[in-house]
Amino acid sequence: MIIPLVGIGVDVHAFEDALELPEGQGTPRNLWLAGLEWPGERALSGHSDGDAVAHAACDALFSAAGVGDLGTHFGTSRPEFKGASGVRLLQEAARIVRDAGFEIGNVAVQFVGNRPKFGPRREEANRALSDAAGATVTVTATTSDGLGYEGNAQGITAYATALVYRTPAS
Amino acid sequence: MIIPLVGIGVDVHAFEDALELPEGQGTPRNLWLAGLEWPGERALSGHSDGDAVAHAACDALFSAAGVGDLGTHFGTSRPEFKGASGVRLLQEAARIVRDAGFEIGNVAVQFVGNRPKFGPRREEANRALSDAAGATVTVTATTSDGLGYEGNAQGITAYATALVYRTPAS
Amino acid sequence: MIIPLVGIGVDVHAFEDALELPEGQGTPRNLWLAGLEWPGERALSGHSDGDAVAHAACDALFSAAGVGDLGTHFGTSRPEFKGASGVRLLQEAARIVRDAGFEIGNVAVQFVGNRPKFGPRREEANRALSDAAGATVTVTATTSDGLGYEGNAQGITAYATALVYRTPAS
Repeated sequence: MIIPLVGIGVDVHAFEDALELPEGQGTPRNLWLAGLEWPGERALSGHSDGDAVAHAACDALFSAAGVGDLGTHFGTSRPEFKGASGVRLLQEAARIVRDAGFEIGNVAVQFVGNRPKFGPRREEANRALSDAAGATVTVTATTSDGLGYEGNAQGITAYATALVYRTPAS
Repeated sequence: MIIPLVGIGVDVHAFEDALELPEGQGTPRNLWLAGLEWPGERALSGHSDGDAVAHAACDALFSAAGVGDLGTHFGTSRPEFKGASGVRLLQEAARIVRDAGFEIGNVAVQFVGNRPKFGPRREEANRALSDAAGATVTVTATTSDGLGYEGNAQGITAYATALVYRTPAS
Repeated sequence: MIIPLVGIGVDVHAFEDALELPEGQGTPRNLWLAGLEWPGERALSGHSDGDAVAHAACDALFSAAGVGDLGTHFGTSRPEFKGASGVRLLQEAARIVRDAGFEIGNVAVQFVGNRPKFGPRREEANRALSDAAGATVTVTATTSDGLGYEGNAQGITAYATALVYRTPAS
């Protein structure tokens, strides 16, 4: 019998322009979120591209499979992932989880933030992240009703869950 | 073989009296939470009745089934849901998910807030929401130890997860 | 056929030294988190040992099994759990869930906080909590990018999910 394992992942990124960066630091660029570039939207900060949705998805997979977390695999000690896209990290996370002996069931992510307006690009985002994971990834969005740092437009929080299955020994 | 899909939902609502509403706006009313009316408790704001627990449950179902989110189905563009109860939205969400070809396994929600005191009415809430969803819904409660907007009694956050199953093609 | 039930748990604890305690109250002690003592780290406050990770794991199990929550079983009305360790509470939660007729699949927890640096002790924490639950418990960690009470080092939030299975009637 095949028994699923569930995992959870949370990721928070601040908007880059909300941080007080030293003069000259911080490159003006577009937002990346849920595997997509959002022209004209404020960028999220981060060692990588700041894609909180993709990162929460990675962490939910790592969490379900019990193979460490984002810091273990893509942390600042791994300079090859500096600036890496959310899609690339999710591809790599799915590879790590499969190499550890798991199949991926599905991943679901909800992010909390005032922006971007997500509905019109939901299907595009689901496709980009599902292609990266090689499994169904769904993304939903909500606001915090004006409360907290999400309501103050200082940052975005993404919450993810995932199911994986131990691959039967071959 | 029947494979489950997991979903996640988060919903935040501010207490109505914590918002600075224009003079004359905002009707004094009781709190609605977890499918129940709470006489004498501060109301949550919202396009609907502000029931963060029921909304998070809806979003977890939508997330698992990959059929959009609360904004897609009950957003401000759907005036027929203005003021709708959490129970009505959860009934409708369950119908949408079943019509899309899924059975509902279960839904679990935890809310974070100082009030209301939930324990004495937990069973009543579980029944109201389980009846609405046509599947087991369980609700738990905690506080944030005085931290954040939940600790300042400005609002409530509800976190939900759900399992659904693709209905075998008939 | 064995059908899993999913649950969710969230727990927040403030650092004890961030609270304004009456003179003489609050015993200086080490942090307890994820079933481990962390010498030299700021303690979390709480009726018990403040182990937000273990508490979220308990609540996710209770949530999946539909048997109340942390307040129901270990609240201030249960003085025998005053100061109880996270490991003891998780042992007891697993016992309650099994006595109610469920097997435990797995539990996954992610905490959000600046400290402690978790990676070096992850395996030790996973072992301590898995031994307590009698089932796989995995713990992951992240920060909130400087935002919110976690970013201000006022407290820690832990998010957990769990799968349980109804034991076939014997």
